[in-house]
Amino acid sequence: MTRISKRVRNSGVETAFFVARDAAELERYLDLDVSRFDIGDINIPTPDSIKGAAKLAIDSNKTGYTPPGGIIELKEAIAEHINRTREVDYTHLNVSVQPGGKPVIGKFLQSVIDPGDAVLYPVPGYPIYESQIRLNGGRAIPYHVERGPMGFYIDVGEIKFLLENKRGIKVLILNDHHNPTGARLDKDQMEWLAQISNDHDTLVLSDEAYFDINYSSGRPRSIARYDGMKDRTVILDTDSKRRCMTGWRSGRAIGPHDIIEAITRLNVNDESCSPTMIQYAALEAVSGGEEDAKRILKELKTRRDITYRSIRKIDGVDLELPSTTFYLYPDVTEAFRDSGYRNLEEFREAALYGNCVSFCTMEHFGDMPNYEDPEQRFYIRISYSGINQEGIPEGARRLNKFITGDDKLPIRRRSA
Amino acid sequence: MTRISKRVRNSGVETAFFVARDAAELERYLDLDVSRFDIGDINIPTPDSIKGAAKLAIDSNKTGYTPPGGIIELKEAIAEHINRTREVDYTHLNVSVQPGGKPVIGKFLQSVIDPGDAVLYPVPGYPIYESQIRLNGGRAIPYHVERGPMGFYIDVGEIKFLLENKRGIKVLILNDHHNPTGARLDKDQMEWLAQISNDHDTLVLSDEAYFDINYSSGRPRSIARYDGMKDRTVILDTDSKRRCMTGWRSGRAIGPHDIIEAITRLNVNDESCSPTMIQYAALEAVSGGEEDAKRILKELKTRRDITYRSIRKIDGVDLELPSTTFYLYPDVTEAFRDSGYRNLEEFREAALYGNCVSFCTMEHFGDMPNYEDPEQRFYIRISYSGINQEGIPEGARRLNKFITGDDKLPIRRRSA
Repeated sequence: MTRISKRVRNSGVETAFFVARDAAELERYLDLDVSRFDIGDINIPTPDSIKGAAKLAIDSNKTGYTPPGGIIELKEAIAEHINRTREVDYTHLNVSVQPGGKPVIGKFLQSVIDPGDAVLYPVPGYPIYESQIRLNGGRAIPYHVERGPMGFYIDVGEIKFLLENKRGIKVLILNDHHNPTGARLDKDQMEWLAQISNDHDTLVLSDEAYFDINYSSGRPRSIARYDGMKDRTVILDTDSKRRCMTGWRSGRAIGPHDIIEAITRLNVNDESCSPTMIQYAALEAVSGGEEDAKRILKELKTRRDITYRSIRKIDGVDLELPSTTFYLYPDVTEAFRDSGYRNLEEFREAALYGNCVSFCTMEHFGDMPNYEDPEQRFYIRISYSGINQEGIPEGARRLNKFITGDDKLPIRRRSA
Repeated sequence: MTRISKRVRNSGVETAFFVARDAAELERYLDLDVSRFDIGDINIPTPDSIKGAAKLAIDSNKTGYTPPGGIIELKEAIAEHINRTREVDYTHLNVSVQPGGKPVIGKFLQSVIDPGDAVLYPVPGYPIYESQIRLNGGRAIPYHVERGPMGFYIDVGEIKFLLENKRGIKVLILNDHHNPTGARLDKDQMEWLAQISNDHDTLVLSDEAYFDINYSSGRPRSIARYDGMKDRTVILDTDSKRRCMTGWRSGRAIGPHDIIEAITRLNVNDESCSPTMIQYAALEAVSGGEEDAKRILKELKTRRDITYRSIRKIDGVDLELPSTTFYLYPDVTEAFRDSGYRNLEEFREAALYGNCVSFCTMEHFGDMPNYEDPEQRFYIRISYSGINQEGIPEGARRLNKFITGDDKLPIRRRSA
């Protein structure tokens, strides 16, 4: 008999971590060179000014507790940063500093949903949405991010349909600049979605982790700036991607004061505060460094272009060029069906163990294919944030060899 | 109508934070010198070797994600540290690195209790226990830490009575080296408590935050080392007190593998991992620095002695000399009754605003007095971790003046 609680047993995990672990083990124990397209981590160093700010805080003995929602200077700097980039008007009272962007998901849901309330979340999408909805006793209702003639799109029509036809939906989770597809709402769609949220009195968690990872000339938009949305939207913002600070765990919730207060109340209960020296690093990260941000974005764009060009050439792979995030989401239906592997997990493992190329699949983003359905499309996710420009063509060659080569690995699933 | 969830509305907070905020506001806005006996924060700097380890990690670009339960080197060092100090035999599989000691409380409870399960917790005690029990849908059942002829003691007899007479108790929260009283189980009591926990198949959260803050010659003991306890105990360990690292948020859960795995699963869901550079600081903190630990303990002991000697002289105050923690828990019944204030919050505020001396009261530790009961005893908590040796006598003089002086402040409650 297990003594672990039902909710934890029913929770999910970020299975992409297991993919990364598989690849890391090959590197570490077999000393193999693996082409790492699997991770959302970034191998670009954190800018020096931010590292310096953290070290200065440590040297200045800023090593005691801070208020649970963060130091006031940082909250003010965050409000200013969000106001400037989102065209909104928040103050420090609208900000709660968090140990990462991810904590905003769980704390927001815990703050606003009671058991049985329903929450809309994107599929494919970041798997923690569904898991946190369940951990908090909510009903998880998926909507879809689809591929159309213009590329991947968030299906606002489906969201509207669900809000009109399903009862008790209190929250919509939106991840514009979408992981894993790179989908992005245009102005009209976002306005429409804001209208729908207002009409149905829906709260919105706007996961803007990739807000600044934008390669197009158009300025990114937050749903918070549309009429009636400021009082119903909580923005998840993080330094992880924009400032190459994944391991620092530096993020924040920005939104209406009542929800921000509830979130901070959970900080008091969960971890007291974010580490003090990291708050000083965050202060530097949100206050300046536009040159660093441009340099980082340029590097990512170069990698995207190299990755796109090398992978689109592979037979049996069909590919969009997204203008946001650092992921590509190739359609590998033809390659997968030709491969003879029974499922995407076998396909992934064969590529990893046979050809030393590592990636995630749609299943890691909650999109479970129906293998019996002849119309089913199959996707993998290629991340280029953790692989250098020089390593990308070799990774693409390995993927090409895996897909088109004759030397396929007869793989048994380790779980079998 | 509020849109905040019931569980968050029903949660508690650490009201000591509000006391600290009141005092800090007097210091900041009125530029007053306040004698700060209120906080559990430490004003001794973090040892240089630990600060150096963090800075080295930053300089070495250890700024990406780590595995959710922590880097393996740290988990191994923690197992070794716990084995050495607790006389147990854990491996890295028994360790989950956490962003502080506090996260262990919530994650452990979320991992093992289902809604309706009961949890025993100490009163007076750290207020987050009760709050996290409620947040996780548990039933909170208090047991008491009482004052006897030999000083404060954890009432093991009451724990036994409750386990025998109340249904559905799944967990006991134990805080030996007890905040706020400094109570400490002796060998026989701990053996008895272990026996009782085994008899009733009870899981134990052993909050050992103050394990190393021990001024007696006797070696501290963990309940985990007693027969049958290793498989039912999760230890909360932290660098906050022992290494003066409160603001670093560096702690860990150590216990049976199934529960540790569940806790790490919650890290995947809640915050991915603890900040990478702080894990390297923790590695230094748990691996060595015995000289630093001795120096810190010596400083705290000197402060304790000064505080004890200056406060015991005050008329209307009755006081024990605890051998653990950095708190004193004076009985101020006589002083409070003589003061004419209607309740302890008025008493506390009058001391703060009238005499610039700040402390917490029993109410901040969940022990709500019955003001109608003539037998009721009244306690305040004096912390000496955040006040220098030189400042203590002046603080005691202020307290003395507040209690015995004729110039009492006619205070109105701000909430009135």
